[in-house]
Amino acid sequence: MAEENSIFVGTKPFMNYVTGVVMQFTTKNASEVMVKARGKFISRAVDIAEVSTKRFLEGVVVVKHININSEKFQNTEGKEVRVSTIEIALQKVNK
Amino acid sequence: MAEENSIFVGTKPFMNYVTGVVMQFTTKNASEVMVKARGKFISRAVDIAEVSTKRFLEGVVVVKHININSEKFQNTEGKEVRVSTIEIALQKVNK
Repeated sequence: MAEENSIFVGTKPFMNYVTGVVMQFTTKNASEVMVKARGKFISRAVDIAEVSTKRFLEGVVVVKHININSEKFQNTEGKEVRVSTIEIALQKVNK
Repeated sequence: MAEENSIFVGTKPFMNYVTGVVMQFTTKNASEVMVKARGKFISRAVDIAEVSTKRFLEGVVVVKHININSEKFQNTEGKEVRVSTIEIALQKVNK
């Protein structure tokens, strides 16, 4: 899947991300879109996937699979910290 | 899977949940444990699954599958609101 079909969830208004997902599937005719997030934004990514598939693209797009993982990095004090990540793959239903 | 193998993530200290998961697999010898959460606690559920499987039960327990869903209910003003849910199934690896 091309990297441009990924949506990284952060601090923008909620509906920006939902619109982004819907447009990838409609205007850009994508067959698959990946919703990605880290840390506290994971809950938001799930909300975006749910609202996109249940309200705006019901019967058209479903959750294909979900992966969770961890990233390790050093914080400003040189201490190693771990952050969780999520990838939610949304897929157009074949009709 | 028995309902007693489910852990509902809320406001308790983080390590309570991780300890709960680890004990289900060790002391209680469960083959599968479900970590469940709603709304903003979803990020926390992912953290708990990651820390449990990557730090405490590495090579012993893995993420089997993840489901997300939505629950609808009426708030105190009688308005219908939607909340996202997650279920993370953790499974003991067969050796």
